Amino acid sequence: MITDAIDHIGIAVENLDNSIDLYTNKLGFRVVHRETLPDRGIKVVFLAGSSGETTIELMEPINHDDETNTVVKFLKNRGPGLHHLAIKVSDIKQSLSELNILGIQLVDKTPRVGARGHLVAFIHPKSTIGVLIELVQVKDS
Amino acid sequence: MITDAIDHIGIAVENLDNSIDLYTNKLGFRVVHRETLPDRGIKVVFLAGSSGETTIELMEPINHDDETNTVVKFLKNRGPGLHHLAIKVSDIKQSLSELNILGIQLVDKTPRVGARGHLVAFIHPKSTIGVLIELVQVKDS
Repeated sequence: MITDAIDHIGIAVENLDNSIDLYTNKLGFRVVHRETLPDRGIKVVFLAGSSGETTIELMEPINHDDETNTVVKFLKNRGPGLHHLAIKVSDIKQSLSELNILGIQLVDKTPRVGARGHLVAFIHPKSTIGVLIELVQVKDS
Repeated sequence: MITDAIDHIGIAVENLDNSIDLYTNKLGFRVVHRETLPDRGIKVVFLAGSSGETTIELMEPINHDDETNTVVKFLKNRGPGLHHLAIKVSDIKQSLSELNILGIQLVDKTPRVGARGHLVAFIHPKSTIGVLIELVQVKDS
């Protein structure tokens, strides 16, 4: 497969409002998208710099007491911080097929609709030397 | 301060060669820069997608037994994985001054020369909700 670009960096947070304040008022990012993803149990906010396509995705659990939620578990085990790396591909089904043939362990064997309506799929960090990687195929491509 | 863009994502690894194999042969990145940073005790490799300016920086300690090295400590405590987020600014001295006034705790109060000859400075993750953030002013700006 070919990685086109870094789409975004996912950051797990305890409180979206505090984190938005840090990234906008202190670090000078701007909010470009907000969304609730009920199937993943999270609220997300995307932020961008003044130029550049790569964004930050802040993720807060909808229910902090839901210990089956992967972001709740991450926050409990490691605290807030860098959570995943999302890379842009032009054909996510083809990429998943190629990774499967290479023996890479996939969390999602088929793509699903994620934030911003894009097709997404996660690769298991056991196969990627400790980094949770998300493939993203943008909606219009 | 204004964040121009995401410059790179730093990833701590135990073995550069294995990680380069993963990111190039399996995930389809390409190596764009290699460098040894003796003052930080690490060897680094930057990788890019086919487009997009944001890169990945893989970092392996030069001496894995040097427990004073921050990357060695990170690998021991958390294992390989996402280590820091580097954001591009146009005037790093001005940015550090503004962050200092805001009460943000800085690891580097003055910029130093980092990988690729760029001026860099780290912000303490205590002030950035668990994310180690590096400011980067590119050499030519």
